[in-house]
Amino acid sequence: MDRLIAAIKATQNPSVVGLDPTTLLVPPQVFDMVGDNISDDTGAGDGESENAAQQVASRLAMGYFEFNRVVIDAVADIVPAVKAQIAMYEALGPAGIDAYTMTCEYAQQQGLYVIGDIKRGDIGSTAAAYAQHLSGLPRIADPSVDTPREGGPYDDLWHEDAVTVNPYLGTDGITPFVDSAKRTDKGIFVLVRTSNPSSKDIQELELASGERFYEHVADLVSSWGSDSLGTEGYSRVGAVVGATHPQQGRELRERMPHTFFLVPGFGAQGGTAQDVAGMFDADGSGSIVNSSRGIIAAWKESGEYRSDMTADEAFGLVASAARRAALDMRDELRVAVYR
Amino acid sequence: MDRLIAAIKATQNPSVVGLDPTTLLVPPQVFDMVGDNISDDTGAGDGESENAAQQVASRLAMGYFEFNRVVIDAVADIVPAVKAQIAMYEALGPAGIDAYTMTCEYAQQQGLYVIGDIKRGDIGSTAAAYAQHLSGLPRIADPSVDTPREGGPYDDLWHEDAVTVNPYLGTDGITPFVDSAKRTDKGIFVLVRTSNPSSKDIQELELASGERFYEHVADLVSSWGSDSLGTEGYSRVGAVVGATHPQQGRELRERMPHTFFLVPGFGAQGGTAQDVAGMFDADGSGSIVNSSRGIIAAWKESGEYRSDMTADEAFGLVASAARRAALDMRDELRVAVYR
Repeated sequence: MDRLIAAIKATQNPSVVGLDPTTLLVPPQVFDMVGDNISDDTGAGDGESENAAQQVASRLAMGYFEFNRVVIDAVADIVPAVKAQIAMYEALGPAGIDAYTMTCEYAQQQGLYVIGDIKRGDIGSTAAAYAQHLSGLPRIADPSVDTPREGGPYDDLWHEDAVTVNPYLGTDGITPFVDSAKRTDKGIFVLVRTSNPSSKDIQELELASGERFYEHVADLVSSWGSDSLGTEGYSRVGAVVGATHPQQGRELRERMPHTFFLVPGFGAQGGTAQDVAGMFDADGSGSIVNSSRGIIAAWKESGEYRSDMTADEAFGLVASAARRAALDMRDELRVAVYR
Repeated sequence: MDRLIAAIKATQNPSVVGLDPTTLLVPPQVFDMVGDNISDDTGAGDGESENAAQQVASRLAMGYFEFNRVVIDAVADIVPAVKAQIAMYEALGPAGIDAYTMTCEYAQQQGLYVIGDIKRGDIGSTAAAYAQHLSGLPRIADPSVDTPREGGPYDDLWHEDAVTVNPYLGTDGITPFVDSAKRTDKGIFVLVRTSNPSSKDIQELELASGERFYEHVADLVSSWGSDSLGTEGYSRVGAVVGATHPQQGRELRERMPHTFFLVPGFGAQGGTAQDVAGMFDADGSGSIVNSSRGIIAAWKESGEYRSDMTADEAFGLVASAARRAALDMRDELRVAVYR
């Protein structure tokens, strides 16, 4: 996590902007604008006419990317990182996946640390394929050569610096991600205690040992990271701990002293700066807090949006509102965390 | 699960062919062939030169699709279903995702039931985006209109009849998938007891109640499906139960009488027809057994492959070996299951 921690120190801002667009969080003018662009392109393509659904999907996907670019430009100098929730893009099919990778690449180009919120997890051999999110495609002349497990160099197809991973499959589903992270100086965040209400169905189950299930997962996560400690005292294997569980988060901070936390659930989901304060260490490090709707939908809450705005005017509002919201969040966290 | 069960009855074959290509499972001639095709296309595209990594990824992705098409054609009349493991495609980035959706669409066109092995899972609002794997894009003229939660009609971007889902997030991460499955006459399979060795790290934990963790998940899965029973007595919410746990599978069959099982781990991972027999009900229904490498890599085990084969000759061998292996698996299962 050294690269992420350095970026947080440089901005004095332990927050990450969630790029989770939906059709309701992007001003409608944006889709009109990219719709025009798609029409202009018609006939210049490969000759096959895409069907209507794919055209709508492409339009939404391009809208998402243009929107993200505006948000990224508005906050790149004040936040260390962005987190892209791949589900929002995957909802648009293959065109959405293109917009996702373009978003990640653009954010990296602007100097941001990019967390891919992909929550993947599978059995060992399959997890190795998912781990190519981090390690990319081996640079091979002959494609019949299989993916080498070690070595490189690699071509990055996804442009993520870290990804989130689901622990349900156990150790052999995690090891390939850890190996890829080590090879490429990247990181992973394993789900431990998620922010949603019914996470308790599973994660708070009491074990025969007396522990809660998420505590057992926490110990596994600590062990998975034990041989990849960075210079800042945190391993490459982080944990997802929701802002909506302040007391559990505080206890997990003590239980996992070498595990960096990605903290979702701030803002729209109810978590406050006070709630997350206990998830930081005594030096004000150890966590990064995500806000998605609170930043990217700030334009809707501004009271300044008008439906007769041009796309450029709407983008101007998206940018100014996102920046204001990101600065507010930064300042709230600074007060609560940098004690 | 009525559609899947009907397809199994029609073929008298409770098996599914796993389309999980890797660079080692596809004959190298195939990549040479599609490489030539890609070269032919150069200049006819959109004018932007893709970088080298994307070109390699596209070549592998096209090779995977052509390979899958040969396998599908070889088995479409003798198996009810295919299962595509999206990780193998995602490893190639966006080009791989295109190959995945093309594979699913082609398989549906050949009359096969398509299981998307995506193992997605997230908090409620995000799970709703993933659930668009099943429900597709709402057919909207104005893309600024948000995805309606109810109603339709929908445009299918993914071409899956069912998907696999991870339960770690709890009920609110599952409900959107169940809702989408109901709207579109599709299904889901929730991970309960996976086939990999270290699944025991998590899934066999003993709870304070005396149950194993996977048994608790099994009960949740039963409850999630309780209001979507089909005419065959099975709900839309199935379970993934690995062939590598025959005794637990037998117990789960009794514990979850209305839950259809997707059974991975047959063949290459060690599960036999005898191992899975207990996961079927008294009528020989209730499960479908997956084999991936055992079918798609049968050409490598045939002893008939020669490196100087043309791509067409290699494809001929892939087809005949896959068909032979699929017939063998069908016959083994018929003997073990249709008692």
